[in-house]
Amino acid sequence: MGRTVVRGGLVVTAAEELYADVLIEGPRIAALAAHGSACAKGWTADRVIDATGRYVVPGGVDVHTHLDFPSGGTFSADTFATGTRAAAWGGTTTVVDFAVQGRGRGLREGLDLWHTKADGQCAVDYAFHMVLSDVREDTLKEMDLLVEEGITSFRLCMTHPGVHHGDDGRILLALQRAAGNGALVMVHAENGAAVDVLAAQSLAAGRTAPRHHAEVRHPLLEAEAVHRAVQLARVAGAPLYVVHVSARQAVEELVAARDLGLPVHGETCPQYLFLSAADLARPGFEGAKYVCTTPLRPREEGHQDALWRALRTGDLQVVSTDHCPFNLAGQKEQGRGDFTRIPGGLPGIEHRMDLLHQGVVTGRISRRRWIELACAAPARMFGLAGRKGTLAPGTDADVVVYDPAAEHTISAATHHMNVDHSVYEGMRVTGRAETVLVRGEAVVDRGEYVGRAGQGRFLPRGTCGRAD
Amino acid sequence: MGRTVVRGGLVVTAAEELYADVLIEGPRIAALAAHGSACAKGWTADRVIDATGRYVVPGGVDVHTHLDFPSGGTFSADTFATGTRAAAWGGTTTVVDFAVQGRGRGLREGLDLWHTKADGQCAVDYAFHMVLSDVREDTLKEMDLLVEEGITSFRLCMTHPGVHHGDDGRILLALQRAAGNGALVMVHAENGAAVDVLAAQSLAAGRTAPRHHAEVRHPLLEAEAVHRAVQLARVAGAPLYVVHVSARQAVEELVAARDLGLPVHGETCPQYLFLSAADLARPGFEGAKYVCTTPLRPREEGHQDALWRALRTGDLQVVSTDHCPFNLAGQKEQGRGDFTRIPGGLPGIEHRMDLLHQGVVTGRISRRRWIELACAAPARMFGLAGRKGTLAPGTDADVVVYDPAAEHTISAATHHMNVDHSVYEGMRVTGRAETVLVRGEAVVDRGEYVGRAGQGRFLPRGTCGRAD
Amino acid sequence: MGRTVVRGGLVVTAAEELYADVLIEGPRIAALAAHGSACAKGWTADRVIDATGRYVVPGGVDVHTHLDFPSGGTFSADTFATGTRAAAWGGTTTVVDFAVQGRGRGLREGLDLWHTKADGQCAVDYAFHMVLSDVREDTLKEMDLLVEEGITSFRLCMTHPGVHHGDDGRILLALQRAAGNGALVMVHAENGAAVDVLAAQSLAAGRTAPRHHAEVRHPLLEAEAVHRAVQLARVAGAPLYVVHVSARQAVEELVAARDLGLPVHGETCPQYLFLSAADLARPGFEGAKYVCTTPLRPREEGHQDALWRALRTGDLQVVSTDHCPFNLAGQKEQGRGDFTRIPGGLPGIEHRMDLLHQGVVTGRISRRRWIELACAAPARMFGLAGRKGTLAPGTDADVVVYDPAAEHTISAATHHMNVDHSVYEGMRVTGRAETVLVRGEAVVDRGEYVGRAGQGRFLPRGTCGRAD
Amino acid sequence: MGRTVVRGGLVVTAAEELYADVLIEGPRIAALAAHGSACAKGWTADRVIDATGRYVVPGGVDVHTHLDFPSGGTFSADTFATGTRAAAWGGTTTVVDFAVQGRGRGLREGLDLWHTKADGQCAVDYAFHMVLSDVREDTLKEMDLLVEEGITSFRLCMTHPGVHHGDDGRILLALQRAAGNGALVMVHAENGAAVDVLAAQSLAAGRTAPRHHAEVRHPLLEAEAVHRAVQLARVAGAPLYVVHVSARQAVEELVAARDLGLPVHGETCPQYLFLSAADLARPGFEGAKYVCTTPLRPREEGHQDALWRALRTGDLQVVSTDHCPFNLAGQKEQGRGDFTRIPGGLPGIEHRMDLLHQGVVTGRISRRRWIELACAAPARMFGLAGRKGTLAPGTDADVVVYDPAAEHTISAATHHMNVDHSVYEGMRVTGRAETVLVRGEAVVDRGEYVGRAGQGRFLPRGTCGRAD
Repeated sequence: MGRTVVRGGLVVTAAEELYADVLIEGPRIAALAAHGSACAKGWTADRVIDATGRYVVPGGVDVHTHLDFPSGGTFSADTFATGTRAAAWGGTTTVVDFAVQGRGRGLREGLDLWHTKADGQCAVDYAFHMVLSDVREDTLKEMDLLVEEGITSFRLCMTHPGVHHGDDGRILLALQRAAGNGALVMVHAENGAAVDVLAAQSLAAGRTAPRHHAEVRHPLLEAEAVHRAVQLARVAGAPLYVVHVSARQAVEELVAARDLGLPVHGETCPQYLFLSAADLARPGFEGAKYVCTTPLRPREEGHQDALWRALRTGDLQVVSTDHCPFNLAGQKEQGRGDFTRIPGGLPGIEHRMDLLHQGVVTGRISRRRWIELACAAPARMFGLAGRKGTLAPGTDADVVVYDPAAEHTISAATHHMNVDHSVYEGMRVTGRAETVLVRGEAVVDRGEYVGRAGQGRFLPRGTCGRAD
Repeated sequence: MGRTVVRGGLVVTAAEELYADVLIEGPRIAALAAHGSACAKGWTADRVIDATGRYVVPGGVDVHTHLDFPSGGTFSADTFATGTRAAAWGGTTTVVDFAVQGRGRGLREGLDLWHTKADGQCAVDYAFHMVLSDVREDTLKEMDLLVEEGITSFRLCMTHPGVHHGDDGRILLALQRAAGNGALVMVHAENGAAVDVLAAQSLAAGRTAPRHHAEVRHPLLEAEAVHRAVQLARVAGAPLYVVHVSARQAVEELVAARDLGLPVHGETCPQYLFLSAADLARPGFEGAKYVCTTPLRPREEGHQDALWRALRTGDLQVVSTDHCPFNLAGQKEQGRGDFTRIPGGLPGIEHRMDLLHQGVVTGRISRRRWIELACAAPARMFGLAGRKGTLAPGTDADVVVYDPAAEHTISAATHHMNVDHSVYEGMRVTGRAETVLVRGEAVVDRGEYVGRAGQGRFLPRGTCGRAD
Repeated sequence: MGRTVVRGGLVVTAAEELYADVLIEGPRIAALAAHGSACAKGWTADRVIDATGRYVVPGGVDVHTHLDFPSGGTFSADTFATGTRAAAWGGTTTVVDFAVQGRGRGLREGLDLWHTKADGQCAVDYAFHMVLSDVREDTLKEMDLLVEEGITSFRLCMTHPGVHHGDDGRILLALQRAAGNGALVMVHAENGAAVDVLAAQSLAAGRTAPRHHAEVRHPLLEAEAVHRAVQLARVAGAPLYVVHVSARQAVEELVAARDLGLPVHGETCPQYLFLSAADLARPGFEGAKYVCTTPLRPREEGHQDALWRALRTGDLQVVSTDHCPFNLAGQKEQGRGDFTRIPGGLPGIEHRMDLLHQGVVTGRISRRRWIELACAAPARMFGLAGRKGTLAPGTDADVVVYDPAAEHTISAATHHMNVDHSVYEGMRVTGRAETVLVRGEAVVDRGEYVGRAGQGRFLPRGTCGRAD
Repeated sequence: MGRTVVRGGLVVTAAEELYADVLIEGPRIAALAAHGSACAKGWTADRVIDATGRYVVPGGVDVHTHLDFPSGGTFSADTFATGTRAAAWGGTTTVVDFAVQGRGRGLREGLDLWHTKADGQCAVDYAFHMVLSDVREDTLKEMDLLVEEGITSFRLCMTHPGVHHGDDGRILLALQRAAGNGALVMVHAENGAAVDVLAAQSLAAGRTAPRHHAEVRHPLLEAEAVHRAVQLARVAGAPLYVVHVSARQAVEELVAARDLGLPVHGETCPQYLFLSAADLARPGFEGAKYVCTTPLRPREEGHQDALWRALRTGDLQVVSTDHCPFNLAGQKEQGRGDFTRIPGGLPGIEHRMDLLHQGVVTGRISRRRWIELACAAPARMFGLAGRKGTLAPGTDADVVVYDPAAEHTISAATHHMNVDHSVYEGMRVTGRAETVLVRGEAVVDRGEYVGRAGQGRFLPRGTCGRAD
């Protein structure tokens, strides 16, 4: 790991677009210099990467992945090894995965288990959020300890009142604690009790196919839960982060919160921007591939436009993947005849940067906003500012040389995720990561994988900030 | 019960103000005729009531009372006999009380018990809502039966998720059933799980006095629950009625629902219009008198103005009392040192018409709106249109001769409710019911009580309508 | 004019539906009595009208007509004689027409001219608003005088800043005056300066056909002007009434105003509820029939749904006609090749009650709301409470026996308006006025016209009230 | 102009905070390197500026100044020479001033005049917006030409309908043109016609003192005009920029526009963040100093909080000064006895960076947001991206070494603006520009002025962009 220079590309960050050469010394960016300047010309390096005609962008930061994740008696199909390798292929150099507290157990135990899963396996850097399955007096105290060792965000789920966390009172307790210790509470916002009633009615009426998954998860039941979480956060005086927002009406709740100046944030995922409930209705059991929660929404109801608009205006701050793949064979198939038994989740970790880049290609968002949403904002919000998500002197040299003109077709036949299908099968996209460095070392070099398990390190994170 | 003529008053209904004589034949209004018309002059009668200088208004309809109501190991201090007598004194001639389903029991059993409590006791007509304590498949079916026999509204409580009804799923089920059988679901909207957390924290911190009752019941937690109930009602396709709205923010949720054209309705009560959190902070344990739920709100936060405005614009449709008195001695006292053990509820059944009339006196609302809010709208919404709440040929002759200029002072020393204090002690009000007829028979005659237990009858109600 | 009894019908007012007989003594309603009551049975009368199977409703109140109205070098095709006769046929017994101040002249002179036009001509009662064409110090003073003689509403037009009234400053002055003298300011809300630019551009680009009339009158330019008028009224502390609201976005401004509790009111007209921009695009020059201002709106943009919803929720309070007919031959034809020269206005005075009744038939509004919108609210808002718009002892005996089941087809061949076409040609409607009384005298008797010019009288109006 | 290195400071841009050394080669920034990196250590330079303990920030960009500006028969007190020198003292290195079209004249003529005023006089770089005083067919065409030569923003005034530009139709025409040629329309949003009525009434009633200036310029009349301008921009399909927003209600209109995803932007100024209507009411005629338009607002109405919140959330994008100083003696004095004759405008060009920094000190905004609002956003929005407003390789070396801990007191005795008073007299602030470079050359060096007239150059600007 000596000196590397990336020459001649258009450096794009959340704030700037400039023709600059990037000097890397060891694991960090040492300098940026105007291309052609005396300074830049004077740089010598062990390795020179020619980025002419390319973008030079920060490595992607995906703050929502589920690798080796237990669900419905099985595990998501990507391990930390395969998942982070796929991430690297797609230009993502940091993932924040979810460690899970067991019911009736402590946070530490769950965290240790996830460390074991990831340790020495990852191709890119990684960190953990913690899923709070059981909010108790002792686990609230444990939150403080975890914050100190860099686990600074905690997820609660509003979908299974009896299973994961209890009730709104438990959410309030967690929010109060977070208000005091600098953590960020993330919520999966859906009114689970109401969804469960509708799901049972659907099954009882013989409506058992995958498409009913979206019907019973009514957009108003997502919006309702967002509203509720916001009010609880206000009462607690805590910031809030809503994961995988998919419904127009949920976006409206975030807009309303933001209009009040509240520290409320939200993410959406590429599947909500490109796929729809129509995919769930594909013939046979193919729709099962598209079962994820919150669900894909009907295209004609305007959800996608609302999400894109919110990404543009800053009412949504982050695009992550919620990567949680299950094979159709043997896994998704569990739910034939009962959509509630289909393991929920989609593969996506590899394609986030490219899919969001389509928004640039079609004029939905600017290049700077692309980097803001995929790199800078997630880093800033989750305690990685100054290290990840941007290209600046002193930050980690997570650098992607991105060919904005490369066209390719997404397919399970060619992707690197460990799953037997792609939800974007056959989709033609423009733009591709060509070379990817993690802390100065290549993991992908001109389209060839050169990384190794263990190249990625665990990242203790700082306390979480506001997107602004 | 022969013929009565009420002569020379200003008849005020929700729609009109006119100088008309009212002819009563038996239990019903036979005719209204212009005062001084040949027709009116020609009327002969067994009894003539001179209403010169008086208003002639419909008997009040109080759709929220708790007589002989079990709470916290005791019972509300007014029986059906004493409570309805006090109602009559105040110009209210119809009450709709809450029969309660026992946990694990059927609706019928609860209804039968309440019939036993009321039968032969009441001075004015009465009907029942049913409190759903336990939403099960069988009780949902029972709802249909009760609707057929005139119990057409059902209350659910969002405050005690584990105690009264279960969870949002149960509320959704009840709403769905109501959407099909013409019933109206009423909700007490507060996020109980969150309130319970705050209350426990307050007690643990030694904040045990009555005033903390209002602090832990945060206005946002009322607004949150209103929003949630509205969304559940939208999903179910059902109308909704929110009881005892007290917070400005809750009103805003009702306004938002109404702007969408949703069949969402709300009531407030005189205590929220005239009393405030400052009363809860009265010295000693006096604040306990003012413990009711939803709580009295801080005056400086603008809740009262918001409520009055909503009453004027129609965003709130009904004023009821939530009459549920407990003696300070022996009952409220249970909660010394622990505000959560103070039985919640205030006396008010006697003063609703007069208190709301102060809004007329001060120009907050018009005379017509006074009658709309206190008589017409509650009758119309709860299945009593054509019988109660207005003065028109064919309707029940529930007639109040009201002296708009009479001044009097509210006091426990003079009121007729069976409770040892008044929350309006010493308040000077203008206007008073002078003579009150129930179905043509006097219960109050020129300031003298002439009614009797059993004069009031049970009213099977029609299906519930919209306020408009 | 002796005694008349209307027997056996369903009396429908804004507040009640009841089976009652109506006794008329001379010009007024003397009494209503329950059908079949001893009282009703005892009534003797010179004339008995059998209303069995019929509605008995108040005569309609149309507060927006332009009879004998000068526009674009011609006059609207209906005189006060023909227009009020057509009104009577349709069950409307009161019209409020617009007297016009001449530029540079006084109000009195304009009013006198309109009195001359109407005097002795009308089949139904009539009153006048005054159009302020020129707001000057002296005309502001004249407003006070006119209020005293029963001209209590004044219209300003925001469409022709340089022609009719000046500018926003003049509107503010008029509003300030109205705040002091009890008058109601009515505005035609469109941003005329912007419309004029778009119209000139349209003509210059060869887009001269009638359909371009709607295109250049952008819905946002209506909404903008409503918003502006509301803010000016707030600054002045005056109530406001917006005429002929047609755009969804304009409704939203009224909703916003009402949510703030402001005394802001609006009317729409049947043409906006049933016709659309598609009619303006009819082949040939037929679209010219449909040129009115504000314009008909594209059906697919949701304006009609928004208007119906607002009528239901009370965000719009009145339905009037803006009746201002011009013959296609000789009048509308002036605008061939230049839509800006087509005299703007539609015939409608005859069909308002029937068209709005279709909203009852299709379940959009209740029967009571039908009467509220077409009779009671316009009477109440424009100073005719206690006389018009309802059926109650003491009010004028303007009574319509309405057959709710009669089907008929609207056509220029059969209508009674003095114009060569119908904008509803061929439309099948359900419901029809059968017998119409004006102050106790028949003008239409079982489908036969028995009225006479001069039967209608001028109505000095009281100061204007709020709709609530 | 050889090589300069700024060493050891905390570089703060809109996007990053990093300890980096800045290398300047000639007029541009050549490179940023991590402080202490081998790269940075290796830099040699003609001059080294020690920034230890200091911030290194981009030079400020003030896009709203009026130097040598004719108003009310006099001229603003600062020339381009004195005004830009004061700007430099305060760390502002780019100003965009307003050239004015004469009524009945062409744009070119006005622009030429302003070039003459500025040429060879300025201490910092400058550019021009153009004030459209007269929108005609020929001046619309001239807009295109000016855009090509770098005058890419045009201001219209809604305050003087008869004087500056005509009416809403003219505004619409200008917006349409801007939609086509990449220009940005800026509006001063107040309903001038209404304000004029209130002002005349105020004077007529003897309310002539400075404080009445704010009273007659009602906040709703600012909000109204913002709403109107937004609707006109929507109709035109053009972006919009609202200057000197001061009222809470105006902010709400911007929030509403932004919630719809419209390209609507707004600026506020330090005076609205720190001063209030109370200053206008200072004893004697001192209030005259505080007369500016839009006016200072009453502190108790919450305007300042709304402005700060909007700056934080991005609903306002820019802070500029509207610098337009007039001496109290001889200039402001013209308006003794008639507040409408007080020349409107305040001095402020020198203090913007420091005053906004108080928002950082008090926690209202982050450091990055400070730079975004004062440097990056104005540069980006007004066609200076890549040159001004940030510190990045290739951009102009407009660099400020800012001492965040320096305390000083604002006073006319010490400020560098050519005006006889300060509106912030005696205010203690924290933070100060210590050294200021314009394109690599010092104008202020460790608190000493070393600049010269003519050092600043005219900046032709690119087409205007969106803030995002």
